[in-house]
Amino acid sequence: MSTPERLIESTRELLWERGYVGTSPKAIQQRAGAGQGSMYHHFSGKPDLALAAIRRTAEELRAAAEERFAAPGTAVERVTAYLRREREVLKGCPIGRLTQDPDVMADPVLRAPVDETFAWLRARIADVLAEGRDRGELDAGLDPADTASTVVAVLQGGYVLARAAGSEEPFRRAVDGVLGLLAAHTTTGHRAD
Amino acid sequence: MSTPERLIESTRELLWERGYVGTSPKAIQQRAGAGQGSMYHHFSGKPDLALAAIRRTAEELRAAAEERFAAPGTAVERVTAYLRREREVLKGCPIGRLTQDPDVMADPVLRAPVDETFAWLRARIADVLAEGRDRGELDAGLDPADTASTVVAVLQGGYVLARAAGSEEPFRRAVDGVLGLLAAHTTTGHRAD
Repeated sequence: MSTPERLIESTRELLWERGYVGTSPKAIQQRAGAGQGSMYHHFSGKPDLALAAIRRTAEELRAAAEERFAAPGTAVERVTAYLRREREVLKGCPIGRLTQDPDVMADPVLRAPVDETFAWLRARIADVLAEGRDRGELDAGLDPADTASTVVAVLQGGYVLARAAGSEEPFRRAVDGVLGLLAAHTTTGHRAD
Repeated sequence: MSTPERLIESTRELLWERGYVGTSPKAIQQRAGAGQGSMYHHFSGKPDLALAAIRRTAEELRAAAEERFAAPGTAVERVTAYLRREREVLKGCPIGRLTQDPDVMADPVLRAPVDETFAWLRARIADVLAEGRDRGELDAGLDPADTASTVVAVLQGGYVLARAAGSEEPFRRAVDGVLGLLAAHTTTGHRAD
């Protein structure tokens, strides 16, 4: 890995483990095995590195999601595959967790990729659901945009409930519940799984 | 307010503003206008005060929710009233936020009231939905326990999306979406609002 890559990866790990305020430039340099001069050669400082780290995490999240949305199958099958994909439930969502980092939320530049990621997810799921409705898989009464926000909220809230319980069980139930609700809107009335 | 009351209220405010690690016994005493001797006369220390503060917040949350669940009306009307009650969306949920406080989550005694609050909420909403199903308001295919987890997750995830967007809009949409999904399971097929 190149030095800028190592610096970005170290910043991602530290942001995850310690949050923005707990991530010092020195700790980033030490973990990356890079000197101070090298860090400031590639990045203007901690905010610049944090932005690169958050963007990288957001890109990975989008790519993993898009893999399910672009797969063949009905709208409900694709949303089901997205909701059921393997996740480290008790660790939580690396993007969702940033909404609880006061320093990230207070900085419009650092908040932007967090906001954009959720806006993209909601819009992309709305597209998938609208496609399903247009194809006659889902009934005309379903609101794609509202339902997409519900799907994303179920995941993010499922992580909160799992952490509170110290168990993946409430996350799984919340996902099963929204898929059960969605099943009543399919023209066949069957669950996708 | 009595001294123990002032100490509990000050601890609640500080936990909310600064988290567990940022809440010092000295700051609690200063905000409460109480001396160190007085604090240790009423409470064994910061963990004891934090437990009292978290329990108080949990009790208030339960009481506000129970007001909607115990009200007259159909199951969907009561769940709708709960989801639509006035909330400070951008501030977030004082109990949900504790799941992001590593010190609270690492201590089984402090985590217990957080876990119990969500377990109670899920069980109570499951009861309301089961009652609606038994009364013939909701179709037999609805799983009350899974759906209840979905409802609680939508709220918690709605807060996450609202913070990311800096707007209540995604929270409102996620709530509208789950109510729209639920409407297809009512035997009348109509939204409660």
